[in-house]
Amino acid sequence: MSELFQAALEAIIHRNKEAMGRLLGGGITSDDPLCGLIEAARYSLDSGGKRVRATLGYWAAAAVTSDTLPATDYASCALELIHTYSLIHDDLPAMDDDDLRRGKPSLHKAYDEATAILVGDGLQAKAFELLADAPELSAQQRIAMVKVLAKAAGPAGMVGGQFIDIQATDSDISLEQLKAMHSLKTGALIRASLALGGIAAGASEAQLAALDNYGTHIGLAFQVVDDILDVEGDTATLGKTQGKDSEANKPTYVKLMGLKGAKAEAQRLLADALEALNGFGESADLLRDLARYIVERDR
Amino acid sequence: MSELFQAALEAIIHRNKEAMGRLLGGGITSDDPLCGLIEAARYSLDSGGKRVRATLGYWAAAAVTSDTLPATDYASCALELIHTYSLIHDDLPAMDDDDLRRGKPSLHKAYDEATAILVGDGLQAKAFELLADAPELSAQQRIAMVKVLAKAAGPAGMVGGQFIDIQATDSDISLEQLKAMHSLKTGALIRASLALGGIAAGASEAQLAALDNYGTHIGLAFQVVDDILDVEGDTATLGKTQGKDSEANKPTYVKLMGLKGAKAEAQRLLADALEALNGFGESADLLRDLARYIVERDR
Repeated sequence: MSELFQAALEAIIHRNKEAMGRLLGGGITSDDPLCGLIEAARYSLDSGGKRVRATLGYWAAAAVTSDTLPATDYASCALELIHTYSLIHDDLPAMDDDDLRRGKPSLHKAYDEATAILVGDGLQAKAFELLADAPELSAQQRIAMVKVLAKAAGPAGMVGGQFIDIQATDSDISLEQLKAMHSLKTGALIRASLALGGIAAGASEAQLAALDNYGTHIGLAFQVVDDILDVEGDTATLGKTQGKDSEANKPTYVKLMGLKGAKAEAQRLLADALEALNGFGESADLLRDLARYIVERDR
Repeated sequence: MSELFQAALEAIIHRNKEAMGRLLGGGITSDDPLCGLIEAARYSLDSGGKRVRATLGYWAAAAVTSDTLPATDYASCALELIHTYSLIHDDLPAMDDDDLRRGKPSLHKAYDEATAILVGDGLQAKAFELLADAPELSAQQRIAMVKVLAKAAGPAGMVGGQFIDIQATDSDISLEQLKAMHSLKTGALIRASLALGGIAAGASEAQLAALDNYGTHIGLAFQVVDDILDVEGDTATLGKTQGKDSEANKPTYVKLMGLKGAKAEAQRLLADALEALNGFGESADLLRDLARYIVERDR
């Protein structure tokens, strides 16, 4: 990763953190009966996530316009709220039963299950409230963002993918089914991240289609690399339990394609993602670097 | 309950059921990997709820305009999706741990906990998708509905109220705190129901304020009557376990005001709800009858 790209990545993660504090802060005092709920939400939101979805939102907007749009803060925070809620619920004992997340105890271990369920539910609602509040956008743009995010987060997207994933444990699954599952479970929200950034920046239909094409490929690449890291990474670097997925007898790309095959697939997907951006000039360089980073990361 | 009102209530519940099937149906076949998720969602949605929130949405619109608006189907379905998701999550073992809902096993008993968590999550997303799709409304109206519903469903509304309720078990709570808890837990969504119907019908600010005032009072009345029924009702009529809340040592109006005091409070709230509708003519008669029904129901 070049120093320039690393600096840009750190800057955009910093911007998202600052925006998250600003947009979600507001008047909760320690004697407020909701204080415990907000604290628990912050526990998850403040932990060191990679903020890939927020970054995709910002940089999709940057590919379309050089304006710094306040609305992209709202879009990117909404995306991270949905992603964080999904991690909180996925970690629950009835779901993936994971005690460790981003190097810290999962929310239901740090607090309790009821709090984890409610924080997740609350973050989802808050995401849509943020989009409805996004400033300097037309109502058309805001409702388009709500539509895209709701569909991506719902039964025909992320939630449906997690359902299929849970059902698939201990059962045979083909490569095609695995791809279909991931295109719902993680792909839908990654594509929505690009769409939200694009919509906020006033992207044309053609630009939105190109961003979506890019998103489809990096979404799959992201998952292929996750499966490779689950085998090759170590728990300390990953911040979650290494080998967890293979132990749980979950279908993975590495199992279905072999380690070498999975690595070649990640490179193919990267090439396709870069090709999808051909219609953009230098303004999409950050997205190009991000695609390389997703494939070359070690955690 | 007059025969005329009963017929109107049955007709509007029928309309909501039909709309729910139509708006949520669509192309799922038995070999679709999502089939199990959709079936589980239907299990909860099809059970015989009172559909109070849908009814409030329709009748708030009817108070404002005599037009039959397709958008009210979208609004009313979205409200029932949010309400149903909240019941599914509230019933989970980590939350209220209730095995019975509307006279049938709760969703996590009929299926499993993971499915119940995911169905709830999916219904919430679907609710916002429906509002974004509502036909014949301006983008301004749709985004206003999203904003109201997201706020009412989130940490500053329903989810926050459930959090306070869970914390309050086995602890002392004052009447003021109980009211504040219920105004979040059930009141916020009831008020949102009236707002969504009003917005869909193009209500003025003054009309929306009157509907909100009505909603505040019937929301509290609804909960006071629930507490009375928890003591006086029987399990078969209620469709949920009678005495559950008093056994769990939950704070209730009956405990804090006595049975007689709670009944008097319900009547006072009814009177205030009716007064709030004084600015409307006969078009609000259904809302007036509904307020009486909420206070006089036996389940």
